[in-house]
Amino acid sequence: MLKRYLLAPGPTPVPPEILLRMAMPVIHHRAPDFIPIFESARNRLKWLYQTNNDVLILTSSGTGAMVASVNNFFNAGEHALVVNGGKFGERWTKICRSYGLEVNELAVEWGHAVRPEAIEAELKKDPAIKAVFIQAVETSTGVYHDIEAVGEVMKKHKDVLFIVDAISALVAQDLKTDAWGVDLMVGGSQKGLMLPPGLAFLSVSEKAWKKAEGSKLPRFYFNLKKEREGLHKNQTSFTPAVSLIAGLDEALLMLEKEGLASVFARHARLAEATRQAVKAIGLNTFPAESPSNSVTAILAPEGIDGQAIYKTLREKYGVTAAGGQDKLKGKVFRIAHLGYAGTFDVITAVSAIEMTLRSMGYPVKLGSGVGAAEELLIEKRAS
Amino acid sequence: MLKRYLLAPGPTPVPPEILLRMAMPVIHHRAPDFIPIFESARNRLKWLYQTNNDVLILTSSGTGAMVASVNNFFNAGEHALVVNGGKFGERWTKICRSYGLEVNELAVEWGHAVRPEAIEAELKKDPAIKAVFIQAVETSTGVYHDIEAVGEVMKKHKDVLFIVDAISALVAQDLKTDAWGVDLMVGGSQKGLMLPPGLAFLSVSEKAWKKAEGSKLPRFYFNLKKEREGLHKNQTSFTPAVSLIAGLDEALLMLEKEGLASVFARHARLAEATRQAVKAIGLNTFPAESPSNSVTAILAPEGIDGQAIYKTLREKYGVTAAGGQDKLKGKVFRIAHLGYAGTFDVITAVSAIEMTLRSMGYPVKLGSGVGAAEELLIEKRAS
Repeated sequence: MLKRYLLAPGPTPVPPEILLRMAMPVIHHRAPDFIPIFESARNRLKWLYQTNNDVLILTSSGTGAMVASVNNFFNAGEHALVVNGGKFGERWTKICRSYGLEVNELAVEWGHAVRPEAIEAELKKDPAIKAVFIQAVETSTGVYHDIEAVGEVMKKHKDVLFIVDAISALVAQDLKTDAWGVDLMVGGSQKGLMLPPGLAFLSVSEKAWKKAEGSKLPRFYFNLKKEREGLHKNQTSFTPAVSLIAGLDEALLMLEKEGLASVFARHARLAEATRQAVKAIGLNTFPAESPSNSVTAILAPEGIDGQAIYKTLREKYGVTAAGGQDKLKGKVFRIAHLGYAGTFDVITAVSAIEMTLRSMGYPVKLGSGVGAAEELLIEKRAS
Repeated sequence: MLKRYLLAPGPTPVPPEILLRMAMPVIHHRAPDFIPIFESARNRLKWLYQTNNDVLILTSSGTGAMVASVNNFFNAGEHALVVNGGKFGERWTKICRSYGLEVNELAVEWGHAVRPEAIEAELKKDPAIKAVFIQAVETSTGVYHDIEAVGEVMKKHKDVLFIVDAISALVAQDLKTDAWGVDLMVGGSQKGLMLPPGLAFLSVSEKAWKKAEGSKLPRFYFNLKKEREGLHKNQTSFTPAVSLIAGLDEALLMLEKEGLASVFARHARLAEATRQAVKAIGLNTFPAESPSNSVTAILAPEGIDGQAIYKTLREKYGVTAAGGQDKLKGKVFRIAHLGYAGTFDVITAVSAIEMTLRSMGYPVKLGSGVGAAEELLIEKRAS
C-alpha cells in the first residue's frame, strides 16, 4: 500500500465530512428540500466573496465561469486588456478571442506580478478598452497579482469592467470583491473550497449587469441573466450538480466556523512555511515577487529535471504535486497548500521533497527543510 | 420521519454502491490513476450507446451537450428542422435560435409521437435544412419518438445531421446510435445512469466531425474538436468532475453486469406495469401513443388539480414525482421508472397514488392499481 497525498493546486483533498455529505441521497433540484441548501450555500458564498452582489453557481469547471465572464458582457470587436503572466492569463486571451474581442495583452514576465501602473498606462493608451482581465493567483507560476492595487487603478476608469479569475485564489487569499471594485470574480469548487471539480462561481456587480444589457454574443448554457432571474426562487436555469451544491454548503459551513481571518492566516502560514523550508533545503522558489498563499512553484536544482521530481514524488512517495506547464515544464514543480490543508500537509510535502531529491543524487541535509517549516509553524501557532 | 422516495424523471436515485464510490478520495485528473477510470467509463459508454464513435464526456448539465450539438457543427443562418412535441423540443429551438440558426419547427401535438413521413415532407420542402433535432423521450409528455423509424428517413438525406436528445431515454430505451444513423446523441448523468447531475455525454459520428470543420460559431468551453484531441491521452480539456466520472464508471459496471437487453427489458416492464396500474385505478395516461419506458405522464382526473396530486404525493407520502410543465401544468403528474428502479418502486408509486387520490376525495378502490401492477410484474418476471 502506497498511501496517497493529494497536494496539487486543484483538485485538492475533500474532507470526509464533505464526502459523506455528498454521499447523502440525491435531492430533486425543484423540490422544497433543495431550497434551504441552495440558499444557504449562496449566502455563505457572498460572505466568502466579501460581496453584497449575487454570486451565481454554474455546473461546469471554473473555465465555464471564465467563458460566462466574456460572452454575457461584451460584443465582438470590443477591446479588452488581458494581464498575461502565465498559462491562465493566456486562457483569458484565448477565450476573449474565441468570442471576437480585440485583445491587448499586457505581458508580464512569468514569475512576476503585474505593476498596476502598467495597467494604468495601457488603459490610457487605448481608451476603447472595456475590460481588464486578470488572475488573482496565476496557478502556473504561483504568483499573486495585487488585486487591491489594481483595483485602485480601476477606480479611475469607471467604464471598464474589472474581471478577476480567483479560481486558485479563493479561500487562500483575502479578496475583497466589493471594497476593491471587482465587477466579476470567478471561482471553482476544486481548489480552496475543498470540493471535487464540477461547480463554478461568479459574482456580478451592478455595473457589470448594466454592461451586459448591450451584449449580443450568442449564449444559452451560460446565460447569466437567466440565472439571475431564477435566484429569487433559489433555482438554477438547468439541473445543477445537486450533490456538489450540498457539499458546497458543508464546505462553507466549515470555513465559517473557522472564520475568514483565520482561514486566510492559515493559508499564509502554510505558504510561508513551505517557502522557508524550500530555502532551508537549498532550493529556490520560482516567483521573483509576490508568492501566493495557494501554491508554491519551486525551481528544480541545476541538472535535475522538474518533471522527474514531480514523478518521483508521486510514484515513490505517493505525493501528487504538479509539474511545470508550458515554458516551465521541467524547470519547476509545484506544491499546493490550499483548502483542506494543515501543518502536517506541509511537513509531508517538505519531507517528500527532501527524500526525493536525496534519492535523485542532489545533496540534501535530511530534515533541514522540515526543521525550518517546524520552526515557523510553532512560532506562528503560538502567536 | 417521513421516508423519502425519489421517483422523478431526473435526478433519479443513486445506488449506495455509486454514492460510496464517489465518496472515495478525489483523484487528480492528470494523474495516472485517473486514466484507467476515464478510459473504462468511455469504453463502457460506447457500449451503452451502441456506437463505435467516441462518446465525449462534458462537465455540465445535459443542456450543455445540447448546446455543444449546435455551436460546434453549424453556422448562423443555416437551416435546422426541430421536432417540437414538448418542453424539451422547445429547448432545441431556443438553443438553435440563440446561435442564429433558422429553425423550421415541426410541431407535434403534445402527447403524440412524430410521424416520420412528416419529417420527410419537411426535408423535401426545404432542401437547405442541415440538421434534424429531436428528443428520443420527450420528458414533459412521456412520449417516445421512434428514433429507428426517423433514422430510416434520415438515411435518404445524407447531408443532414440527425441529432437526438436522449437525456431521458438513455438506459431506458434501446437506442442503436450507429445502426440507426444517429450523428449526435446527447445524454446526461442524472437519469438512467443513476448518477447525480453534473455530467453530459455526446456521441459524434464521422459525418458530424466533417460538418464541424466548416463551423465558425464562437465556442471555448464546449469545444468538441479540442475534447476529441485530448481523448488519445484519456484527458478532457478542462478539469472534469472526477468524482462523477468515477461514479459513472461504477454505474456502467452495474449496467454491464445486468446486460443491455435485461436493462431495457426491466425498464419496459416497469413502465408497462405503471401504465396497467394507472388504468386499473381508473385514470388515463397522457400519451395518445408511444409511451416511453422512462416516465409515465398521468392525467389528473376531472376536478382534481395535477399539481395538488404531485404536492400531496410529496408532502404526505414522501414521494417526489413531477408535476406538469407549461401547458400541462395542473393537467398531469409524472412518475419515473428510470435508472435505479425496480418492482417495488412501481408498487410504491402506485400505492402512493391510490392513497393520495382517495385522500383527495377521488373514488379509488385501494389496492386495485397495485394488484394490476403485481399481476404484470409476476408474469413478466416468470417469462
